[in-house]
Amino acid sequence: MRFTSEQRFDDGVLEREFTLGEIPGVLWTPPSSSAPAPLILLGHPGGLRRMHPRLAARARHSAADGFASVTVELPGSGDRPRWPALEQARADLHRAMKAGEPVGDEIIDALVLPLVEKAVPEWRDTLDAVLSLPEIGGPVGYSGGVISIGTRLAVVEPRISAAVLFAGSFVPRVMFEEARQVTVPLHVLLQWDDEGNDRQSALDLFDAFGSKEKTLNANMGGHAGVPESAGEAAARFFTRHLR
Amino acid sequence: MRFTSEQRFDDGVLEREFTLGEIPGVLWTPPSSSAPAPLILLGHPGGLRRMHPRLAARARHSAADGFASVTVELPGSGDRPRWPALEQARADLHRAMKAGEPVGDEIIDALVLPLVEKAVPEWRDTLDAVLSLPEIGGPVGYSGGVISIGTRLAVVEPRISAAVLFAGSFVPRVMFEEARQVTVPLHVLLQWDDEGNDRQSALDLFDAFGSKEKTLNANMGGHAGVPESAGEAAARFFTRHLR
Repeated sequence: MRFTSEQRFDDGVLEREFTLGEIPGVLWTPPSSSAPAPLILLGHPGGLRRMHPRLAARARHSAADGFASVTVELPGSGDRPRWPALEQARADLHRAMKAGEPVGDEIIDALVLPLVEKAVPEWRDTLDAVLSLPEIGGPVGYSGGVISIGTRLAVVEPRISAAVLFAGSFVPRVMFEEARQVTVPLHVLLQWDDEGNDRQSALDLFDAFGSKEKTLNANMGGHAGVPESAGEAAARFFTRHLR
Repeated sequence: MRFTSEQRFDDGVLEREFTLGEIPGVLWTPPSSSAPAPLILLGHPGGLRRMHPRLAARARHSAADGFASVTVELPGSGDRPRWPALEQARADLHRAMKAGEPVGDEIIDALVLPLVEKAVPEWRDTLDAVLSLPEIGGPVGYSGGVISIGTRLAVVEPRISAAVLFAGSFVPRVMFEEARQVTVPLHVLLQWDDEGNDRQSALDLFDAFGSKEKTLNANMGGHAGVPESAGEAAARFFTRHLR
């Protein structure tokens, strides 16, 4: 893990860009405190530069609650090497959606499963690196999309203690079985009229999660219209489970 | 409106029992403040004596946020005159559920529609009476079940500004059309494995509400298992919309 730049915001939050091998990432830490900070892995759909303002806003909000946050670029996105198979699958998805056709399982599988396979080990490596810093401790939460990545992480990574999952992407059928193995507390955000996923599939996935404690927080509007109150509810969920 | 008893709790909340004509009710007001308090109508499934501890807890919690709360007994419940048709419908419902049979529309209609017809005007009379007290102003919210009563009230009573609706009872088909006419902000609570309603019907009703701002907060567990965090989220909803 190599830090490449840093800036401190007015609120005392330190933002540091880094590379982990070839993977770019960003780490936000709250103003120094005596105890190591719990950590939130900030998931996103890919494209760190484009997502940066929103991720930084979420991270600074979490820092006010005492949390550090970290994110890394997804494989095949942003400044990382192009991944032609992923681009083909994305193009297939957009063509089907534009044509108003149902999005077939083969498109969803081709888009999401390789991403999960590749991104989850990278998230785990990121976790190793960040938890080795003295100012960061645990417990660890995952927050955001891609929901299949968050689901796999919650299954395979025992250091994840709670997750806020954003049901804003299509879900491969195989992930429903995997969801049954998730046991950590979950807070699932769903935009009721999200153009980028299938509502019934999101409800089925929520039903499938094995966690005894899970909340569905569904709000009106499209993919990008998550209301402020839903962000606050997610923050309170982490405060309940990671402090 | 005739007050029949009063007691003040340690937290300064004043609880007054009253009768409105023949209808018993309870009013809770926060410790005196300069401005008239906004009001929450506390809905429940009937049986004020049995429900009293839970309703009083909710009312005292709301009083801490500055709200007055009022509730009245439902027709045919508690100390009010028996309503044989309602009792028959309840017995039919319990028999069907015990036998594991699907609960037919005719049972649901016979149970809920007469209750809505009779209870909603009584809630409106209660509102007239309570809003005439100098210590209570507005705006007004409805909180609780029976969800069909809350839905009808939100349609016909312009003084209702926001509602927390508990999706914990069966819903007559005719109410889905009525739900489209609701426009106030809604916060809908759903217990995912509630034995006392139909999950898909609750999701369909949430979808049907015409409100631009509506949130579904669904949690694990049965009818009586609403987690503390869901109660707090509902309280924050009222603070956002009634203050």
